[in-house]
Amino acid sequence: MNDQPAKAGGKPASEEIQLSGHIIDSLVLPRAFDAIMNLGGEFDVLEFRVGKKKDETSFARMRVTAPDAATLDAILTQLQELGAELVSQKDVATSPAPRDGALPPDFYSTTNLNTDVRIGGRWVRVEHPEMDVAILVDRAEKRAFTRPMVHVKQGDPVVVGHDGIRAIPLERARESEIFSFMNSAVSSEKPKKLAIHDVAREMKAIQARGGKILVVAGPAIIHSGAGPYLGALIRAGYVHVLFGGNAIATHDVESALLGTSLGVNLGSGLPVEGGHRHHMKALNVIRTAGSLRAAVEQGILKRGVMYEAIQKDVTMVLAGSIRDDGPMPDVITDVLVAQDAMRAAVRGVELALMISSMLHAIATGNLLPAFVKTVVVDINPAVVTKLADRGSWQAVGLVTDAELFLRELCSALDVAETA
Amino acid sequence: MNDQPAKAGGKPASEEIQLSGHIIDSLVLPRAFDAIMNLGGEFDVLEFRVGKKKDETSFARMRVTAPDAATLDAILTQLQELGAELVSQKDVATSPAPRDGALPPDFYSTTNLNTDVRIGGRWVRVEHPEMDVAILVDRAEKRAFTRPMVHVKQGDPVVVGHDGIRAIPLERARESEIFSFMNSAVSSEKPKKLAIHDVAREMKAIQARGGKILVVAGPAIIHSGAGPYLGALIRAGYVHVLFGGNAIATHDVESALLGTSLGVNLGSGLPVEGGHRHHMKALNVIRTAGSLRAAVEQGILKRGVMYEAIQKDVTMVLAGSIRDDGPMPDVITDVLVAQDAMRAAVRGVELALMISSMLHAIATGNLLPAFVKTVVVDINPAVVTKLADRGSWQAVGLVTDAELFLRELCSALDVAETA
Amino acid sequence: MNDQPAKAGGKPASEEIQLSGHIIDSLVLPRAFDAIMNLGGEFDVLEFRVGKKKDETSFARMRVTAPDAATLDAILTQLQELGAELVSQKDVATSPAPRDGALPPDFYSTTNLNTDVRIGGRWVRVEHPEMDVAILVDRAEKRAFTRPMVHVKQGDPVVVGHDGIRAIPLERARESEIFSFMNSAVSSEKPKKLAIHDVAREMKAIQARGGKILVVAGPAIIHSGAGPYLGALIRAGYVHVLFGGNAIATHDVESALLGTSLGVNLGSGLPVEGGHRHHMKALNVIRTAGSLRAAVEQGILKRGVMYEAIQKDVTMVLAGSIRDDGPMPDVITDVLVAQDAMRAAVRGVELALMISSMLHAIATGNLLPAFVKTVVVDINPAVVTKLADRGSWQAVGLVTDAELFLRELCSALDVAETA
Amino acid sequence: MNDQPAKAGGKPASEEIQLSGHIIDSLVLPRAFDAIMNLGGEFDVLEFRVGKKKDETSFARMRVTAPDAATLDAILTQLQELGAELVSQKDVATSPAPRDGALPPDFYSTTNLNTDVRIGGRWVRVEHPEMDVAILVDRAEKRAFTRPMVHVKQGDPVVVGHDGIRAIPLERARESEIFSFMNSAVSSEKPKKLAIHDVAREMKAIQARGGKILVVAGPAIIHSGAGPYLGALIRAGYVHVLFGGNAIATHDVESALLGTSLGVNLGSGLPVEGGHRHHMKALNVIRTAGSLRAAVEQGILKRGVMYEAIQKDVTMVLAGSIRDDGPMPDVITDVLVAQDAMRAAVRGVELALMISSMLHAIATGNLLPAFVKTVVVDINPAVVTKLADRGSWQAVGLVTDAELFLRELCSALDVAETA
Repeated sequence: MNDQPAKAGGKPASEEIQLSGHIIDSLVLPRAFDAIMNLGGEFDVLEFRVGKKKDETSFARMRVTAPDAATLDAILTQLQELGAELVSQKDVATSPAPRDGALPPDFYSTTNLNTDVRIGGRWVRVEHPEMDVAILVDRAEKRAFTRPMVHVKQGDPVVVGHDGIRAIPLERARESEIFSFMNSAVSSEKPKKLAIHDVAREMKAIQARGGKILVVAGPAIIHSGAGPYLGALIRAGYVHVLFGGNAIATHDVESALLGTSLGVNLGSGLPVEGGHRHHMKALNVIRTAGSLRAAVEQGILKRGVMYEAIQKDVTMVLAGSIRDDGPMPDVITDVLVAQDAMRAAVRGVELALMISSMLHAIATGNLLPAFVKTVVVDINPAVVTKLADRGSWQAVGLVTDAELFLRELCSALDVAETA
Repeated sequence: MNDQPAKAGGKPASEEIQLSGHIIDSLVLPRAFDAIMNLGGEFDVLEFRVGKKKDETSFARMRVTAPDAATLDAILTQLQELGAELVSQKDVATSPAPRDGALPPDFYSTTNLNTDVRIGGRWVRVEHPEMDVAILVDRAEKRAFTRPMVHVKQGDPVVVGHDGIRAIPLERARESEIFSFMNSAVSSEKPKKLAIHDVAREMKAIQARGGKILVVAGPAIIHSGAGPYLGALIRAGYVHVLFGGNAIATHDVESALLGTSLGVNLGSGLPVEGGHRHHMKALNVIRTAGSLRAAVEQGILKRGVMYEAIQKDVTMVLAGSIRDDGPMPDVITDVLVAQDAMRAAVRGVELALMISSMLHAIATGNLLPAFVKTVVVDINPAVVTKLADRGSWQAVGLVTDAELFLRELCSALDVAETA
Repeated sequence: MNDQPAKAGGKPASEEIQLSGHIIDSLVLPRAFDAIMNLGGEFDVLEFRVGKKKDETSFARMRVTAPDAATLDAILTQLQELGAELVSQKDVATSPAPRDGALPPDFYSTTNLNTDVRIGGRWVRVEHPEMDVAILVDRAEKRAFTRPMVHVKQGDPVVVGHDGIRAIPLERARESEIFSFMNSAVSSEKPKKLAIHDVAREMKAIQARGGKILVVAGPAIIHSGAGPYLGALIRAGYVHVLFGGNAIATHDVESALLGTSLGVNLGSGLPVEGGHRHHMKALNVIRTAGSLRAAVEQGILKRGVMYEAIQKDVTMVLAGSIRDDGPMPDVITDVLVAQDAMRAAVRGVELALMISSMLHAIATGNLLPAFVKTVVVDINPAVVTKLADRGSWQAVGLVTDAELFLRELCSALDVAETA
Repeated sequence: MNDQPAKAGGKPASEEIQLSGHIIDSLVLPRAFDAIMNLGGEFDVLEFRVGKKKDETSFARMRVTAPDAATLDAILTQLQELGAELVSQKDVATSPAPRDGALPPDFYSTTNLNTDVRIGGRWVRVEHPEMDVAILVDRAEKRAFTRPMVHVKQGDPVVVGHDGIRAIPLERARESEIFSFMNSAVSSEKPKKLAIHDVAREMKAIQARGGKILVVAGPAIIHSGAGPYLGALIRAGYVHVLFGGNAIATHDVESALLGTSLGVNLGSGLPVEGGHRHHMKALNVIRTAGSLRAAVEQGILKRGVMYEAIQKDVTMVLAGSIRDDGPMPDVITDVLVAQDAMRAAVRGVELALMISSMLHAIATGNLLPAFVKTVVVDINPAVVTKLADRGSWQAVGLVTDAELFLRELCSALDVAETA
């Protein structure tokens, strides 16, 4: 196969590329130099204009040379992720998929940035930007769209190589607020009250203009007694899409029916009984009713996060995992089906709040375009780091207590907790 | 529904129970007293004999009284988990399941302990002990076996209530080795060389007697360059069952084909290219070949953990999760199907090593009987705690570095790492 | 020296001991059995009466036998920490200290429990209970008191051996509130709002009866913008003793004078300038003024935690550490002098709140008697664990965000934050 | 005071500065642009030459304008830390210290970079670079040297303002080894075997040329049974300076005399007795002997880290902290005296290994020039982050297990562990 590391003996290859925008203070240019040298290439700066004031953009054109074509390929891959364009303005190339669910060997793998491909000499924006998927091109309609590997059909025209592709880098925000901290954690040692109020302001603005807010919620929200705050946000119309797993649904129902979460009484904070039986009871009640919605309609489920979400017709995806007991009948147990449901639901989301959830947060991060504002709240700094490491670098991390975060957020939004 | 917390106004109820064994120094008796009082009951000790030397067992018989039947029910549930028997030796009771996938309201939810039920006046051992599942009884055959809620069929005879059930508590080991640390973490501040050599000794003994060892492996094993150690253990016949997810398979193949893991060169420790493309290439190569085994047979995959496992015909379950890219064709994407495959594969396992894996480790912990020796290795103390919190309290946690752990384990077993 | 591990060839030795109280459900008895067996001894239960109801106490008398005197010594040391008394009611024994700052080889090393020694046939309570120190006896006055090793003078009568000593174990509280969680962490996944309100209630009660509350404060309080909440608690009279280090004083002054903490603007959450210069300026301003109090009196320091503490004449100990810059002139740079100042200041304290501080929290934990209610607040679970591991097992840990904790605590106490 | 944040109403001020070197790919230029804009200034690029190949340096000259002098001052402070020079080549300015231990208000606070000051038109290297201290100038001798604030005497000529000062930025290494990861953690998920072998190679090279290696050692080394590895490194001549606290000394002696560390038997890994008594015994034995060296000379202390260090005449500083019991007679209890001892001992050190130590590692990091290669080994990622946050950004962090790290390091250096 031709995906092997470059071998000695290849012939030198080169390509001319250009970069423009705030490429110095947004670190694009140094990163480009870095990438070239780290991968064993060389560069020759042919043209360079620096913005002389802070609002002027800069421009660089350079020839990149590598010891062989495979190395040049690797370099161009990285440069394109940084927003470089090949100076030779060719059209995008495609090859047919070799079989269902597989791609041509030199397929272009997307970033989560907005991306253009050149069709018939014209730059066309790729629809539904998403990380780590293929791009299919419809030359007749002059359209291009992302497609997960698993959904590609034999013969589909898959974008390959480097020609006619450009990713549009995010400009670093200069706003004096939380979302200017892109790709950085607000640690437990920095003031978070301000950050929480920034999030609240953003939520109000999105709600006011009819936009969509996504919450990815982990079960610790229920265990820590913060369910009523999340319920209140839903009831007040601040949550339009809700992602979670079997655990948050189960513990929320346990809490609604039995007053406990994993067997801990949420009123007194004391353990009540062997925790495991309560959550099995909660599962059994809903399985007996048929579904969460059926349980609401039958008057069995009368409060809690699931109840509020069903009452408000929130778009909810509960995705299964192999550690699930039960599970709740509403849980999608095939992970590819669940991914597709999440993929559909994130369309149009402007803000994603990921709270005390690692697995579902990473899964959602994989699906979100980079321009969606993303806030990750977790008491464990490793969760935030892990998300950023996987490419969701637009995420702002708040290392703080989810219970107190949600309480403060409700207060900043003037929302009273539900019963 | 009758699962509500006990209400005021119920009538007092009582039951006579007995406990025997090393109930004082194994903490069973104090825990029983605790449970009764925490749940609002009272006890009256009717008979008490203390072992006067350390090898004599003790015996306690007492009457437990609660303000109402629901509270008594809660108390008996906990006492039975501690190994208490009702003095009234009735047969086990069953009710028919109300619908497919649902249980009678007062179903008995299992622990992961060996459990007996009384059928026709005789104690019968429940087959395939597993936590948080139902027990079905075949009175004609005088057999009983566990059954996950989701697999119960309408009308199945499900064990309910408390009569005729006894859990057999684990005796605390008095051995001067790692497995005497049941339910406790060997922190990063305690000597681990000894613990690793104890694990090695146990593995040798199991291998010698033809027993089965399970490894649950997380992708950090590959990222950290420890894949060759795990490969070597497999090749040397120390791994009979292997659980993992899409990530370890993908990064292992990436490492075998391209020499990187998430784009980091495992030879130099330096990043090579945008990580995401390499893992997508690895997925695409295997998806194009058809399966991991096909890739081995076609001579494409020639080394690594997956390669060694396929060569050795290790029983392998790769379970999907919603964060998966690709996935590898061998990944089971429906989590219930994956659970069943894992459930079948853990039969007969004597030792489980869970290394740098949280999701799969918790899932496996849910399926393992308490008598399976379990070692959880993770650099993050929270993972071990989390596993223990979910009931897998027989697990010994080693808070250490997985790479150096596997290296030391190979050395203790005189196994040379694979290429 | 005679402190070596027991050697083979010693002669068997035995002693009769007794335990009484809630020794079963407080786990004293099982722990005693455990200790004896773990150390290689044997026991023979001579008498045993179990409380037949939950409010009746139990009693056990047993003969402990060990293979040699050194092992018996080790066993008795542990049994005495559990509250065991020797049945032979001899008077306490003392030996003269061999030189200044050193003790006789078989000295009794204290726990943090209340402890009695028998002088002239009468049990006398040891004054100023503190962990890991010696006990001196004044037989003439029939008094006994703790004395740190470093302050012992040659010839002082130091308690040695096991005779005539009994530690009074803490009974486990049965209260349905935070302080019943002794020796346990309230994790980030359990409801903390309740716990915070319990702390507030306790603080109100102590304030009402004129008792003393100690706060041990780490610099993260300032970095996270929570200084005004702590300032408000001080102004409202809820803090009587304040322990900290150079860092909290420096960053508090930096925040008061320059509006930043480590160079981060506490109003906007954004970095202002190279952090290090601001904290050096803050140090220099106070060093130029002469002291924190002088800076307040000269009108230089007009707000902040230090300002409020000086205005309220709070007993403040700022203890130095080797990582200190400056330091502030008020910092005690000799750690033994600082320990003595802290030792004096904790007398009479009823509640200790340790917030985002590890070094000073551990140091304070070493000095506090076990009966002082102690709450450790930190976002890092390891800090709480570390404190408990060192013997401050009465501490309740709250794994949460210090900023949001203090904000909620102020709210629960109806205290408005300071400017 | 004139240290207040800039007020509205000041007059605009400007200054011309220049930067040269690998200012693009070392991120110096983008950071400079950032600093200017973040602090509210503007810049006008007057001259700009980009290196056209990777080994050519770049040059930038620009005018920086700020709304007032205080803001300009803040900006110049940051630019100078990045290596900017004022184009106006004036001599360095000094003011007399106002009193002992205090500095003029506009004192220059050092970074840990090599720094030059201009005296009589000539650039002079400041001696003993250290972070967060003042610079004194001896104009007669044309010399300059750092001086901690606390040691400045009234009237000393302290460097103030911005003229005639330049910090020499570290160039990013392009070496394919661990030390090219400056300011970054090698996480637990990256291969560490390679990193450990790089450290070993560096240690061999330093030993071969007669250089000095510093180890900062925390007590977990002893608890985890890794003492013999550290002892072996000392015996083999790989440790020339050793920093630690009372805890490592105490537990090392406990381990040497009694075979335990905090009461845990290092041979079996099992707890032996109440931990606290053993460490008190160890302290008492050494306090009775007079000192660690005396105990070695009297034949009492015959093995362990302290023993090996004394036998090899390693320069050892044991610095006290307020949590210390005892302490060992060799511990320096005044933290300023301890800092001075450490300051003297780090002169000439080429490599610093900080192992399982937070307090002492941070303190040492404060004293080390940036050009000293520094490796921080800890299982807790937060420790590494904390060190980097405090300015020791040249440190490479290895998130791994100290016990297994030291074992592997000994193996890489062909050193056998001591008894």
